[in-house]
Amino acid sequence: MDLQLRDQVVLVVGGAGYIGSVVTERFRQEGATTVVASRRASDDLDSVVMDATDPVSVRSAIAGVVSTHGRIGALVVTAAPSAQTLDPARSSEPEQILEAVDSKALAFLRVATEVIPNMREAGYGRIVVISGQNALVTGNITGSVRNAATIMVAKNLADELAGTGIAVNAVNPGLVADDPPREVGIGRAGSTSTQQVADLVAFLASPISGVSGESIAVGHRVRGVMSF
Amino acid sequence: MDLQLRDQVVLVVGGAGYIGSVVTERFRQEGATTVVASRRASDDLDSVVMDATDPVSVRSAIAGVVSTHGRIGALVVTAAPSAQTLDPARSSEPEQILEAVDSKALAFLRVATEVIPNMREAGYGRIVVISGQNALVTGNITGSVRNAATIMVAKNLADELAGTGIAVNAVNPGLVADDPPREVGIGRAGSTSTQQVADLVAFLASPISGVSGESIAVGHRVRGVMSF
Amino acid sequence: MDLQLRDQVVLVVGGAGYIGSVVTERFRQEGATTVVASRRASDDLDSVVMDATDPVSVRSAIAGVVSTHGRIGALVVTAAPSAQTLDPARSSEPEQILEAVDSKALAFLRVATEVIPNMREAGYGRIVVISGQNALVTGNITGSVRNAATIMVAKNLADELAGTGIAVNAVNPGLVADDPPREVGIGRAGSTSTQQVADLVAFLASPISGVSGESIAVGHRVRGVMSF
Amino acid sequence: MDLQLRDQVVLVVGGAGYIGSVVTERFRQEGATTVVASRRASDDLDSVVMDATDPVSVRSAIAGVVSTHGRIGALVVTAAPSAQTLDPARSSEPEQILEAVDSKALAFLRVATEVIPNMREAGYGRIVVISGQNALVTGNITGSVRNAATIMVAKNLADELAGTGIAVNAVNPGLVADDPPREVGIGRAGSTSTQQVADLVAFLASPISGVSGESIAVGHRVRGVMSF
Repeated sequence: MDLQLRDQVVLVVGGAGYIGSVVTERFRQEGATTVVASRRASDDLDSVVMDATDPVSVRSAIAGVVSTHGRIGALVVTAAPSAQTLDPARSSEPEQILEAVDSKALAFLRVATEVIPNMREAGYGRIVVISGQNALVTGNITGSVRNAATIMVAKNLADELAGTGIAVNAVNPGLVADDPPREVGIGRAGSTSTQQVADLVAFLASPISGVSGESIAVGHRVRGVMSF
Repeated sequence: MDLQLRDQVVLVVGGAGYIGSVVTERFRQEGATTVVASRRASDDLDSVVMDATDPVSVRSAIAGVVSTHGRIGALVVTAAPSAQTLDPARSSEPEQILEAVDSKALAFLRVATEVIPNMREAGYGRIVVISGQNALVTGNITGSVRNAATIMVAKNLADELAGTGIAVNAVNPGLVADDPPREVGIGRAGSTSTQQVADLVAFLASPISGVSGESIAVGHRVRGVMSF
Repeated sequence: MDLQLRDQVVLVVGGAGYIGSVVTERFRQEGATTVVASRRASDDLDSVVMDATDPVSVRSAIAGVVSTHGRIGALVVTAAPSAQTLDPARSSEPEQILEAVDSKALAFLRVATEVIPNMREAGYGRIVVISGQNALVTGNITGSVRNAATIMVAKNLADELAGTGIAVNAVNPGLVADDPPREVGIGRAGSTSTQQVADLVAFLASPISGVSGESIAVGHRVRGVMSF
Repeated sequence: MDLQLRDQVVLVVGGAGYIGSVVTERFRQEGATTVVASRRASDDLDSVVMDATDPVSVRSAIAGVVSTHGRIGALVVTAAPSAQTLDPARSSEPEQILEAVDSKALAFLRVATEVIPNMREAGYGRIVVISGQNALVTGNITGSVRNAATIMVAKNLADELAGTGIAVNAVNPGLVADDPPREVGIGRAGSTSTQQVADLVAFLASPISGVSGESIAVGHRVRGVMSF
């Protein structure tokens, strides 16, 4: 399937991370000019330093990409600290919850807000954010609130941009692993590989995709309960 | 993106219809052996007659495909009467509602039930059903109940098959049109082309997809309301 | 709390059953004129025979109640065969699914359709249907589809009647038992007593309630997953 | 209907506000010992000063209530700044979003966390938080994220407390007005009076209620879209 990504500029925020690096590689295989944004300087040839929790850093990084490449056709944000870095003993602490919302949902919002004017000018754009299926389950307030907030930001942006040619979607992995187990418990999300996440992201970030305002689980969607 | 569908056998029930014919063409472009099932004999070289509301017809058609091709790798069901054929004046009539559930949700269930044993043996399969975004809105009881029932059948099958290598998903177009308008009203679903539906279906029906138990809108997902 | 149900006429379809008889008693304690509709003639002083799967029987029964009492202020429908009567071995059989949709969701629709004109004239009404939390879980296609269809009919009616003074809601028990256990498994609904169901129904069927278009679980809502 | 609230101790956080004062009055009519917590000292005879954004203030206020009254049977939290105080021009600003999550969802979490040990000891409790239907719609990121986060905190607590005798629920008004209009637009929530909110809260906070883990709209639930 030709994703028609050749010569498009794709910005992957968090593109040096566990999921992000596979996403980046995926876009390069499709022939896209793919810029990696990460907190620390990377040895990637096409990269930019960005701290997505800092509005000044975000603004300057995006301005740099636009100045170099002109047009950002697709933005992928997978910059959040992984779920494993969250302290489960502090999952109900207001401070950790706020910090987690800031560094995931609002980091995404900051980056998207800077990129959208460039896409609006072109009358075209694709935005994909990696959230997670723990938005759908209980048991860890930090995990569910930060991911649900991320999905809500995406849907708000999608609805605001309806009709402009810019599509916005969230992708929600369950557990991401190199060798994901097949089994899925009742009330639990299934597992997935980084490659499966990257393939779905590439599809949604491509011009051929007609999906917007969606939130898509990858890895079996929470088993045992209905979803619409 | 290589969907790895070459030499796979794909059965498209409703494959001669408005959406189905584009889906069929999509799979053939990917190199899949694609069998069209339709109510009336078609002049398609690789086709089978099937009335999905009749269990005997379904059983015999599937047996025929298995006997000819051995292995069904993917099943796509898009056999339902289009929303336009439903009489809006009868949308709250129990008889029309039952008939619509039977000819869409249960037609899908009948076909899937016959194909699943073949997929179980192989430890692999992909099932995609076309439902519709009117499952998400009110205003037409026939339209929302038959589509929601279709999504529920898909999620039930997906959960039952979790861990077997068989993935089941529903795809929910809004209005499907040759030249879909961009605008989306508040509380309404967006429009989509048959090609956009077919591309999403092809992705979900491919071995590379890690999605199961999902229900994905194509065309902007109902605008103005949150979705998870 | 004064539910202001004194002298109101309440019709309880299925009012002779396990849940229905407690609902009926509840309304009578509040001073409402409460008419029991049931399939077989009952020795209840204020009762009517109605087969909710038969449109002629429904029409004639409602006409009788209106002719005797003039005004129906509240309608409660809890007429469906209990979940225990469904054959689990046939839960994926199209015939049983259709029959279950007909005898629960569409039975409700038939009765509501006959009662609504009377409520429209008065510019006031309360309609409550008992569905069930298996609408929210997978594992039994018959159970989930018939209950989801019931909830969808209720929401469609509520939306159609918005602004008319008529409120429509669904109440979704988990397991109903005389001595409901407290424990709730992950991915499971909690248990409830008939009295708890009846109290919630009485509240929603009273003039003081401002709730419409809702679907409310009674007994812990499916544990482990988010709900909005 | 006897809510069995006589002699129970009910703490209403935000009990001096527009909704809170009616809720407080409702509980007193039922014969409950009702303590008002508010940011500023009130002339209510049974009141306590509490800043729900400050953990030290919350802890000391709850300790005071427990020391005076021994047992808290029900907690109602309606302490958040009203939607009108949110600056619509800043609804997409990360700072305002964080502040709104902190002063609503996390304020609720702080108070609940301090009260729950008292309820656990008693093996009984009822917790109700006022969130809002803008959790269900898009158009204002601050409004939807803070309310959804509040609902998620409630569901997480409910699930954690399943089986302990403590029920936790969220109540979601649309627009609250003295003279609520009947009309409801497509994609919009209906309006409600403070009295209707208070009556629902009183029911859910009473021992007779069997509801937990729910999130209930008051005022017509967003019209035009399905809800389960």
